[in-house]
This record gives sequence, structure tokens and C-alpha cells, in this order.
Amino acid sequence: MDNAHHPVRLSLDELRTLAIKILQAHGLASDHAEAVAATVVAGERDGCTSHGAYRLIVCARTLQQGNVIKDAVPEVTHPSPALTKVNAHGGFAQLAFSAGVSHLADKVKKFGISALALNNCVHFAALWPEVEAMAERGLVAIACTPSHAWVAPAGGTKPVFGTNPIAFGWPRPGRYPFVFDFATSATARGEIELHNRENKPIPLGWGLDKEGNPTTSAEAALAGAMQTFGGHKGSALAMMIELLGGPLIGDMTSLESIQVDAGRKSSPIGGELIIAIDPEGFLGLSAAAHIARAEKVFDAITRQGARLPSERRYKARARSLSEGVELPCRLYAELIALSHKEE
Amino acid sequence: MDNAHHPVRLSLDELRTLAIKILQAHGLASDHAEAVAATVVAGERDGCTSHGAYRLIVCARTLQQGNVIKDAVPEVTHPSPALTKVNAHGGFAQLAFSAGVSHLADKVKKFGISALALNNCVHFAALWPEVEAMAERGLVAIACTPSHAWVAPAGGTKPVFGTNPIAFGWPRPGRYPFVFDFATSATARGEIELHNRENKPIPLGWGLDKEGNPTTSAEAALAGAMQTFGGHKGSALAMMIELLGGPLIGDMTSLESIQVDAGRKSSPIGGELIIAIDPEGFLGLSAAAHIARAEKVFDAITRQGARLPSERRYKARARSLSEGVELPCRLYAELIALSHKEE
Repeated sequence: MDNAHHPVRLSLDELRTLAIKILQAHGLASDHAEAVAATVVAGERDGCTSHGAYRLIVCARTLQQGNVIKDAVPEVTHPSPALTKVNAHGGFAQLAFSAGVSHLADKVKKFGISALALNNCVHFAALWPEVEAMAERGLVAIACTPSHAWVAPAGGTKPVFGTNPIAFGWPRPGRYPFVFDFATSATARGEIELHNRENKPIPLGWGLDKEGNPTTSAEAALAGAMQTFGGHKGSALAMMIELLGGPLIGDMTSLESIQVDAGRKSSPIGGELIIAIDPEGFLGLSAAAHIARAEKVFDAITRQGARLPSERRYKARARSLSEGVELPCRLYAELIALSHKEE
Repeated sequence: MDNAHHPVRLSLDELRTLAIKILQAHGLASDHAEAVAATVVAGERDGCTSHGAYRLIVCARTLQQGNVIKDAVPEVTHPSPALTKVNAHGGFAQLAFSAGVSHLADKVKKFGISALALNNCVHFAALWPEVEAMAERGLVAIACTPSHAWVAPAGGTKPVFGTNPIAFGWPRPGRYPFVFDFATSATARGEIELHNRENKPIPLGWGLDKEGNPTTSAEAALAGAMQTFGGHKGSALAMMIELLGGPLIGDMTSLESIQVDAGRKSSPIGGELIIAIDPEGFLGLSAAAHIARAEKVFDAITRQGARLPSERRYKARARSLSEGVELPCRLYAELIALSHKEE
């Protein structure tokens, strides 16, 4: 056995320390570094490897390329009593969310419903950390964001939408919240890129070539257009997310975002909308009884052997919290090298 | 040519008058009759025949069976500053919405975001009239409602969800709003019933038989379970709608609704949630410029020959507004007969 190929086991604290070191070595201000590290560690902890430690390489590249403001100070404004806006001023979305989350939580308790817009931020992460943070406070939350125009509308052939994810969180007493987070594209762009690297065909329904024909070539789909999930319904949903996370909050559409990117292939820059509702806002003291009633729906799903979204993620989390995480040796070595760079 | 089979042309006013006459002949209070008639006429006007004049037969049956409170007085309460609840007290949803809509519109202008819950109402109509009403006021709206448990979760075999529709409205200056309204089931239950009546096979993906196997038999799917659109993503969305339009607002889940129905096959009774956001709430005076920017996304879709949701509906509307609507002779005769009943 070759020891050099053994995976390396790290505690979550060790991974956090390493992540912060890498990010700071690339010039990221310490408050940003802590917020980004928390998200990356959460991804690795939950077994989302593409949004885990691997993302530190992507973040380091983004920082080197100068596509993110390293010491941006998020600016919080209150455009309406129940709305909050955070201008990230070109920094990572994580610190902008940290700056806005307490306002969102306060306003939803006060008014029953509230929304938080993050503007001008660099996105590289999933949306579930945001909705899970709200659900952990007993609140219901929906989050969405446009990205780069890669996805054709149903019945069309040319990219208009981003992969436009939507996430939802619902509190479950005594358990991890019900959380889902999915792209409205048929699959992740990274999945098609992976097929392309490995020279593997993609299933029909994932993408169209430049002429608008269905294709099983990953390369042709990357040059052409991705497709939405679920036909015209998924396409309608992608449009909703485009509008809510774009023009509604005064931020870029996916078409505008990819124009600004101008071929640099950086992380999308733009907006994100998070809506939160307080069950007690509608139901007062009886909220707990109705939240308990929702458990019967979850039971009816799991009892028949169907899986809830996030179930796999929570299982990985339980394991990681007790045993730490394992990084492939090569990834670990790359991260160590990055942590010494520019020091 | 047999004159008796010619369709009958009615102006929208004539259809409205006939609708009100039928509903009142079946004992529906006049304020309810006007609200229900407006919805039925809007459906017929927009070419949604299953939600048009034909629905009057369904409504008349619901009224005869005593499954709706004919003179229910909707009760408006204000559980939180930005939330409104309307208890329909067992009446049709239309009057409950009428009772709540001005509060929703006032609160969203005041707070930036607001939500309206309709409780204990009988649902027979689509959701687009609600979101279109908000979009016509320059507001963005999302509406959703559970129904009867007919639809299995992805990976499961037994019904848990209703057909759980979601609707979205977005204002377009000088044009009809962007509106979509779709069920999260793969198809409408009525569509499977139609295949069953005509003894036609259904496509795979619409339903499962009682043993949980994919089936092309409409009868087997009706006895078994419908499927969601878009696999696990559509299933996650159906769950979100189940929770938002059910426990969050203190109303029934689809599992509870079908238990209460106890095989009578009545229209679902339960809740509906409508969320509204004011673009000016986030953007103030610059809202119009950003709403105009959204038009570029619509242009990018229609320019490539893809259709926007509701396009067909708006075309039918333009025609109906100038020419009226045509009812099949047999349907017209049935409606005339119903208008004389119980007088």
C-alpha cells in the first residue's frame, strides 16, 4: 500500500483553520475568510464534496484573478419596514448574508414575513446554508439566485437562464430541518464538465448543441445550451428565480452576468433573495401544534421508503461531527501548498 | 348541417349573467355567485375550458351535495402586521380572496412584502386569477395550495401530495403580466380521468398502479397514485407547497383533506397562501427601470421562438373580448337547464 495515497483525516476545526489560512494567504480579509471557511467546512461536513474543501481551490483562483473585492464591507439598508438589502460591494455572498441575517430574523418576528436581498456579491456556494440557518430559528425560508446564462428556456435553443437554484427550509422540532436546494437546470454544469473531462456521453435532456439539437456530447452541450429540468414547468420556475433574484432586487439577470464575465469563467456576480415567514406570525401559540402536524406528512413519505431531500447530507454530517472528514491525499497536498502561497 | 350541433356564441356579459343565474338557482348567496361567476367567465374567456363554463356543472353539483356553505361570510383577521388571514368558513375561495385582496395590497405597499392566507375554503379554480390580480397592481405574487392526496413522492408508491399547484405573477408595463400556474403533478387528474373515459393509455411517468409499478392504464393510475413532474425536484416542490398552503397557515394537508372527503370526490377544502412583494419596496423610484430591464429576458425567450406561459391564454382572451365565447351546444343546453333548476 502506498501511504501517499491514503486519504487524510481532519477534524472540522482543523479544516476550518486550514481554510482560513488559505483564504487569508490569498489576501481575503479575516471576517470574509471566517464566513467563507464556515460555508466550505459545512459543505465538506455534509458530504457535498463539490461545495466542500475542493471549493477552496476555486476561491483561491477567484481571489488571485481579482474577481472579488477582498475587503469589501457589506452595507445594510432598510428600504421598507419588512425588507432588508445588503450591498456586498463585490465581496463574497457569505459575509453579506451574515450582515443581513439578524435583520431578516428580527423583521420576520415583528411583521410575520420579511425578505432579505443580497446585492453585488460573488456566489460560489449552495443556498441551503441560508435556508437552514432560518429553519434552525423556527422560521420557514425560500432562497433563490440567478447565475450565468447557460440554460435554454423550454421550446428554445439558446441560453437565457442560469442554473437558477431554489432552496427551501422548514423547521422540524428536535431534528434537522427539512431542506431542499436544487438547480432548475436538468443537471449541474459541473456534472457536464465532468463528463466532458472523462469523455463520457451525457443523457438526452441535459443539453442542446449550438444548432439547438438534442445532444449526448458534453462538449457540444457546454458550447450550446443546458436544458431545464421538468420541461416547460421547470423553465417557468427558472424564469421566476431569474426575476426574483434579479430585477426585483435591482440586480443582474443571468444574461447580464455572463456579459459582465466576458469569458473569464469566474463565479457569477449578482443578487440573491431570501424570503422568511414566521409560523407564529400566522398561528400564534398554536404554531407548534401545526408544525407537529406537518410531521405526519414527513412520516407518510419515509414510511413508504422514499427519501427526504437532505437525508443523505444529514447522515454525512452526523458521521463528520464525530469522526471528522477525509480529504483525498492529492487535494490535501494542494490545499497545504495554497495555504503557504503569498505568505 | 344540423343546427342543433352548432356551438352557441355568448358575450362575456351574457355568460356572466347565465353563470350567476345558475349559481343562485342552486342557492348560492349573491356575493358568492358574483365572485364565482367572475372566475368561471375569466376561465372561459381565456380558453381554459376545463376551468370555464363547464365548471358551473361541477359547482352546481357541489352546491347540491351540500359540500359548500352557500352563504358563508368570510372573516378577515390580522394576525401580524404584514399578514392577513381570511377564514372562508366553508365557502368558495373566490369571495375569501375578494375579502382579503385589498388588505394584501395595502400591506405590501406599506411593508414591502406581505402574505394572505385563505382558510377553510372550497377550491375549484386555477390560481392564476389571484396572481394576475396582484401583478395588475404592479406587484409580484406567488400563490400555492395543497389539494387531495393523489400524488406519490419521488421514490415512493403511495399518495401523499395533492396536485399542489404553484402560480407566479410579474407585472409587465403596457402588457398582460407574466403569469404561470402549474400543477406539481406530472399532469392534471382530469387529464387521466379523460383518458380513462376514452379508454386510452396514459404515458409512462403519469402514474403508478396500486402495487407501485409504473402503469399506462389510466384506471390503474387513478386507483394507485399519480406522479410528480420532474422527478425528485418536482417532488420537493410539491412538499414545499404542501407545507406552505397547509400547516404554515393552520390548514389541512392533502392527506387530511382526502380523509375529510371520505370518498365523496368533492372539491378539496383547505387553505391557500398568496405572497406578494412590491418592487418599489426594494427599489423605490428606480423600480420601473428594473422592471423594464426584465423585459430583455422576455425578449430573449420570445426572440428564439420559445413561448411564454399564458401566451395562449392571452391570445384567447383578446379574441373573447372582441367576439365573445362559443359553447358547445350540449354544454349550453345543460347550463340553461341548470339555470332553471330549483327556482
